[in-house]
Amino acid sequence: MSEIKHAIQDYYPSDLAHCFGCGRNNELGHGFRTGWNGDETLTVYEPPEAYTAIPGYVYGGLLASLIDCHGTGSASLALHRKQGHEPEDGVEPPRFVTAELNVQFLKPTPQHTELRVTGEVEEVHPKKFNVHTVVYANNDIVAKGLVVAAVMPDGFGKA
Amino acid sequence: MSEIKHAIQDYYPSDLAHCFGCGRNNELGHGFRTGWNGDETLTVYEPPEAYTAIPGYVYGGLLASLIDCHGTGSASLALHRKQGHEPEDGVEPPRFVTAELNVQFLKPTPQHTELRVTGEVEEVHPKKFNVHTVVYANNDIVAKGLVVAAVMPDGFGKA
Repeated sequence: MSEIKHAIQDYYPSDLAHCFGCGRNNELGHGFRTGWNGDETLTVYEPPEAYTAIPGYVYGGLLASLIDCHGTGSASLALHRKQGHEPEDGVEPPRFVTAELNVQFLKPTPQHTELRVTGEVEEVHPKKFNVHTVVYANNDIVAKGLVVAAVMPDGFGKA
Repeated sequence: MSEIKHAIQDYYPSDLAHCFGCGRNNELGHGFRTGWNGDETLTVYEPPEAYTAIPGYVYGGLLASLIDCHGTGSASLALHRKQGHEPEDGVEPPRFVTAELNVQFLKPTPQHTELRVTGEVEEVHPKKFNVHTVVYANNDIVAKGLVVAAVMPDGFGKA
């Protein structure tokens, strides 16, 4: 998983880096990491054994989680680049929340296999991005996803 | 969570009860349990502390997982009832897989709060059911979901 050298999640503001999916400050979480791979985004992950649907196959909720965090990370990468930044330049990137998540499960996803999740980011509004996602296992497309990601409002969650 | 006396997942075939979300044979999983509440289905769950998005709020991937398993469980309840059975009569219920999952995240979901997930099941084909789902926290609607659930094909995952 070191293939992604500079992940956007490595640079999220520290008080917003506790996400179970992709927060570096969540010790129990998955630690998903998303970076650029040319003009596409990429997350690479091999799910732990427990995340099974039926023995031998990956749990759909894990795939949904992976697509979700990959989506918000991809949107962050894209807006950050639009603003003239790359993850490694040390500027805090914008954080996104998921407004809507859609997952099509196309094939059973084998366990003990590295999953490769790609993203194409489409700006639909300056604060709203669609991330079109494909999940590959052994070069097979096992799922497709759409994440509608919105810039996290100021004071989000500080009700 | 004992409110649901007879959950459909309590009666899934033992070799198909390892799901991280709702399998009684998965010691590390969530153990979601789904039963009838009148003509609706119901899952009740309080997410553990680690499943955070940002501190104080529930991780979207957990909500997606909850909606997913609630959806397949609801479809199983509905087809089982159509075939003349209730969970507690001891007949193995049909198992479903998720073809498609859609989640709308409507409000930040507070942690340390019991979530109540309701389902209305719509048969669109003898082997395919749409489960329309609403997630409540403290009587607020925090998310809505649609699960397209299909009867698990014979030999699923036995490639």
